[in-house]
Parts: sequence; C-alpha cells; structure tokens
Amino acid sequence: MLSTRCRVSFSSFVADSGHDLSLLNLFRPNRNSCKFLRRSCPLMPCYSRWTGSKSSSVLAKAAASEEKEEKRQQEEEEEEEEENGLFKTQVESLLETIKWDEKGLVVAIAQHIDTGAILMQGFANREAVYRTLTSRKATFYSRSRSSLWTKGETSSNFINVSNMFMDCDRDSMIYLGKPDGPTCHTGAETCYFTAASDFINTPQVETKRLPMTSLYCLEDTISQRKLDVVGGHSGKPSWTKRLLEDQKLLCSKIREEASELCHTLEDNEDKSRTASEMADVLYHAMVLLAVKNVKMEEVLEILRARFGQSGIEEKNSRKSNC
Amino acid sequence: MLSTRCRVSFSSFVADSGHDLSLLNLFRPNRNSCKFLRRSCPLMPCYSRWTGSKSSSVLAKAAASEEKEEKRQQEEEEEEEEENGLFKTQVESLLETIKWDEKGLVVAIAQHIDTGAILMQGFANREAVYRTLTSRKATFYSRSRSSLWTKGETSSNFINVSNMFMDCDRDSMIYLGKPDGPTCHTGAETCYFTAASDFINTPQVETKRLPMTSLYCLEDTISQRKLDVVGGHSGKPSWTKRLLEDQKLLCSKIREEASELCHTLEDNEDKSRTASEMADVLYHAMVLLAVKNVKMEEVLEILRARFGQSGIEEKNSRKSNC
Repeated sequence: MLSTRCRVSFSSFVADSGHDLSLLNLFRPNRNSCKFLRRSCPLMPCYSRWTGSKSSSVLAKAAASEEKEEKRQQEEEEEEEEENGLFKTQVESLLETIKWDEKGLVVAIAQHIDTGAILMQGFANREAVYRTLTSRKATFYSRSRSSLWTKGETSSNFINVSNMFMDCDRDSMIYLGKPDGPTCHTGAETCYFTAASDFINTPQVETKRLPMTSLYCLEDTISQRKLDVVGGHSGKPSWTKRLLEDQKLLCSKIREEASELCHTLEDNEDKSRTASEMADVLYHAMVLLAVKNVKMEEVLEILRARFGQSGIEEKNSRKSNC
Repeated sequence: MLSTRCRVSFSSFVADSGHDLSLLNLFRPNRNSCKFLRRSCPLMPCYSRWTGSKSSSVLAKAAASEEKEEKRQQEEEEEEEEENGLFKTQVESLLETIKWDEKGLVVAIAQHIDTGAILMQGFANREAVYRTLTSRKATFYSRSRSSLWTKGETSSNFINVSNMFMDCDRDSMIYLGKPDGPTCHTGAETCYFTAASDFINTPQVETKRLPMTSLYCLEDTISQRKLDVVGGHSGKPSWTKRLLEDQKLLCSKIREEASELCHTLEDNEDKSRTASEMADVLYHAMVLLAVKNVKMEEVLEILRARFGQSGIEEKNSRKSNC
C-alpha cells in the first residue's frame, strides 16, 4: 500500500491534474504507484515533496552521504526491473487464456470510461493485446493492412486504457479508457453514428445520431431546448425552456428537489419516491449544467479522480496547500 | 405526429408502466405509434379513452353506424398492412448497406440503454439483423451451432432493442436496449467480468469485476462502504461511512451542496466550480440512494420514460387522473 503521506499528495495531484488514477490503481495497486508516477510525471511539484526527488533538503542529504544514496537508487532500479519482468510474465500468462480465432484474433471493443460510450470496435491479435496492456494505448490488428495499429498513432487521438476486460468465452475484450479526442476517422465522437431508425424512417436524409444512453440522451434533449431558447425559436411549450429562461426558478427548483429527495429519507417514504425525486434532482441540476456549458462527462471525470481515495482524505487534500 | 391528446395519454401510460417509449418513438415516430401501442398493449386503460377502443361511448356510436365503423376498420387495416410492407422494404434497404464479411457476418454488440454497460458481443448475419429490427429482440448468429439465436430464447432474459446503430465501416452494430435479466449464461449481469488488472496482480485468485464506468464505479464504492458499516467493520476512515451512519448529516450535506451548485450560477462562478459542485451533489445524493437501496439504473429508467415528452406535459400528466 502507498503510505498515507504519499497517498495524500498523489491524490491531490490526480485531482488537480486529471491524471488517470484508476489506471494506476488498477495496474499497480501497491507502493509502485508512487515510483511509476515519478517516472511518468517528472514535473509534478507536490509529489516531489514526499518522495525525495531533488529538492534542496534532499540535495543536502545526498551531499552528506552520496554513496548511500547511489546504492539506494541502484537497489530501487533492480527492484523495478524485477517487477517489470514479473508484470510481463503475468501478461503472458493472461494471453495464454485467451481464445484466439482461426486467424489468431479476438474482438476488441473500446469503451469510454466516463460516459460508457462504445467508441469503436476492432480486432486484436496477441501482440495487440500485449501492447495495449503494456503501453496502455488501445491497440488493434488491422485486417486490411495486416499490421498492428495503435489508435491515435496518426491522429494523436489515443485511447488511454485504464483496464481491459475479458468475456466469459475469452474471445472478446473491452478496452475501458479515456480518449484524447474524437475516435472516428470522420471526426465523430464515436464510430457508431448511423441509427437504424433514421435510416428506416427517412432513408433519403443522412442523419447522424450517436447511440446515447439515458443520461446523455437527457443531456442532449436539454441542449436542444437550449438551442431553441438561444435561437429564439418558440416551438411547443417546454418545462426545460422555462427553466433555461428563468434562472431564479431553476435554482429554486434545484433546492426544492434536493429537499424533497431528503424528505424521502427523513419521512421514511417508499423507495420509488426516492428514485423519482432523484430523477428530479438530476434533471434540474443538468439544466443548470447546460446553462453553464458544463458536460456531464466533466463531472464524471472529477468523480473518477476523487473516488480512488477516501472522501475524508480527499477533503483534507483539498484543504492542504498541495 | 401524435395529436396532443394522444401524446398526453400515451406519455402518461409510458410513465406509469415503464413501457419503452424510446422504442416506439424511434421506430414509429408518427401517428402509428398510437396504433402500434393499441395492438401491443390492449389492456392499457388510459389510452383507450383517447383512441376509441371499445369504451361504452364508442360502442354506442358503433351501434348507430356499424357499417361505417367496419369500413373505417378495414381501411385502417389496409393502411397498416401497407405501412408494414414499407417498413420491411426499408429494413431490406438498410441490410443492403451493411458490409458482411466473407462468412456473411458482422459484429453485434448489445449495450444497456440505461447504464451503458456492454452486455455481450456476438455475430449477426443478415437474418439476425432483420429479426432484431422487426422483433426488437437482440438476435445473433451462433457460429458454433450454425444457427440463428435470439438472446433469451431459453433463459427468457431477452434484450429488448430500442435502436440499432451502425459504425462508419458498416461492419459493426450496436443493439441498444434493455435486458430482461442478467445477460451472461453464468448469471453475471454482463459477459465481461474478468479484469486484466486482477489477473495480472493476483493470478491465483479468481475475481469477478465488471467494466464499470465512473458513475457505477462510484455507486459500487458507496455500496462497499455500506457493507462495511452494516457489517460493523471499522477499517479506514471514510467520509461515505460517516454519511451512511449519520442521516441528519447526509441530508444537511445534500441541501448544502445543492445550494452551492446554485451559487455557481447565481454568483456567476467559473464553470469548473459548477462541475465540482455537481460532482458533490451527485455523490451525496448517491449515498442517500444507497441508504434507500435505490440503484442509479432505476433513476435513469425513470428519466428515460420522462424525457420522451415535454416536461410541462409530463407534469400535467402526473397531475391528471390518468
């Protein structure tokens, strides 16, 4: 485990920089997270305070006992090398369990860690999976070019993989990660943007529609209403439009709905009331997000950075200078 | 478009019954939604008030002009048949655009419409896609059995498909829908439950871990804390545990955070403050959900049922008798 002092600075760094905590937690859930972080983020200011990179006090100590310091560093490097070797051996063991098809491939699906959006689907051979696990960049095998292909190698829109999941048959993988930008070569957020319903209902019109799940469909609906309001389109009456136009009403509703959610607990109401009031809180709060141009994805990214640590620690780290 | 009268009762039915509005909206976004609904939900009480199924007043009218009524019904049936024919033709056109591989297959990924979880991945041939679009049950082609396979045909855990999405290459599909129960034959919620990180870190221990996105990872963390509290485990300090144990504190925090979110709008604070306060609202409200044993999925299902209609209409429909 990381020491408490190390954890706090590490956490606050993550919270401040948006660095992918889950990646570090999942692949290196031990003291090596600190070492890995130092290697990958040499400029991190807070971290150096705890881990002894070259601050003035450390330099003074090193001057007093340079030989001792060198020996310590050498030991650390040897330990690191050994651990890297073990990591690679374990990745090889994992690859042994995968059921490659007659072409040596499995299906690999890249999924957005915050929104859950399916970004793209490709195929992966043994080397592609190995590279994904070791480089943490989603890597596939291009069947048309018969070569390895790391998503982003030309566009720079890499998919930073936090973890990989195998299905029950071990012939299909999920690369769960955070994309650096739009995934599709067309510039679309994901490769899936043609809805069967649109094709069937209006085959003559080319419509783009992402497979949005409920939360993002709601976000999209609110955005549409906002466009109507901003554009001065009247259209049919809408509660969302009223809220968007009347910020006093919106804030009063958010406070009211939050209180109603609490009442379901305080008054021991039925759990269906809780679900309904939570839906109200979420909807009204999301209208406020739309007014402020904040995407739910940004909120979820913050939560991802936070929940890798104890809430109390997180509160303390926010209060600290670091 | 549905008439306003029809929409209101239709919407309230959807809100009350949890029937999949998006399915109806997406595949039949015109007046046929009413007809389709009448056919598929003959017992719906409110709907019959508006659409003239056999209430006493309609019977009286029919008695007065039976011939006229019969003619109308015949015309309606003919129209319906014609529309069904057109629908099938359009599905066939869509199938023509798909790029089947050398075995006549494409990848088909089933995704949960509320949570975004990737439920399973299979392959689909032309007939499987056709059946999925016409029956709205996720259907695949089993390569091992060389036969069509509708997920749920033995377990009854069907995946009710709201819409299908094609990728930019037209060789990969998403079946976006609601599962009737666990998707995996092992009883797991999804087929993806083996994390590479677990395998690499503790290869000797078989751990189940779903590829949870940020919102559900947070929900899971809160659930774990609740288990600690209920089980009387002390463990390390946790803000979540404090909130779970002190409902007065929890409710006071929810009200406080909701108010702080509003302040970011009222005081014109930076949008990063809004995102941060929304994260606080969401987290604290989710602790309350955990106390009440409500899953975020239930909340999202409610929102999905609601956002197919204007909020004002929805509010009115909730106030009405229907």
